[in-house]
Amino acid sequence: MQYTYTAVVPASWKEAVAKTKAALAAQGFGVLSEINVRDTFAAKLGEDAASAVGDYVILGACNPHLASKALAAEPELGALLPCNVVVRRGAGDPATTVQAIDPQTMVQFSDSEAVREVADDAGTRLRAALDELVQGSDAGS
Amino acid sequence: MQYTYTAVVPASWKEAVAKTKAALAAQGFGVLSEINVRDTFAAKLGEDAASAVGDYVILGACNPHLASKALAAEPELGALLPCNVVVRRGAGDPATTVQAIDPQTMVQFSDSEAVREVADDAGTRLRAALDELVQGSDAGS
Repeated sequence: MQYTYTAVVPASWKEAVAKTKAALAAQGFGVLSEINVRDTFAAKLGEDAASAVGDYVILGACNPHLASKALAAEPELGALLPCNVVVRRGAGDPATTVQAIDPQTMVQFSDSEAVREVADDAGTRLRAALDELVQGSDAGS
Repeated sequence: MQYTYTAVVPASWKEAVAKTKAALAAQGFGVLSEINVRDTFAAKLGEDAASAVGDYVILGACNPHLASKALAAEPELGALLPCNVVVRRGAGDPATTVQAIDPQTMVQFSDSEAVREVADDAGTRLRAALDELVQGSDAGS
């Protein structure tokens, strides 16, 4: 089963990270956490593991209005938040891959109608952010 | 469907956060991100939203060895990482609730045998961490 939305962006990893944050902000998502997987692996596992994973960041994107609505309906839902957006590029990759979690994965585990509405809204916004990344690249090429 | 492991800890929220981090560390998990939901809501939505959610933190727990194995098998799996552990206590709650994501939720979306093995291992460790929280409290009471 597909659990992410994907955009392939013809930009350097660093540039793609900046563009992803801007696209998320335009859709009302702040970035509450930022995990640099490459740096973490370099520190904890060594350079081989860091090289294997490549440039890789996990951005924790949160729209506070949506999160507040979801947590009011189902307090434990924080275990599935924030919405993760991965920006990654391996050594041999010709482009940078951006992948956002599909919020419908939340709905799989919840019976709450409010959570379903939040997932629909968040999904629309995340797709719009990723579309913007691709369209922005097309316009500039 | 249940998507978290739960421990109810008779400790203050602050104390439970510290104990949770220690229990995770004992199981090989570092905390790579820490999102204070109450503070975020206070800043973005105001005090009413902050009071409604109560004391609430989302810890992003990562075992680098397990994460490296999972990402080698399935690069996009970062969209489901780190393993979130929520520590929360509403204004009227008689205890603090600690809830860790059940890593089997990852397996739902993946066909990778390596990912399944990682989920089994991570789940065993997260359950052990939460058991320690409850047993530690029993021993101390």
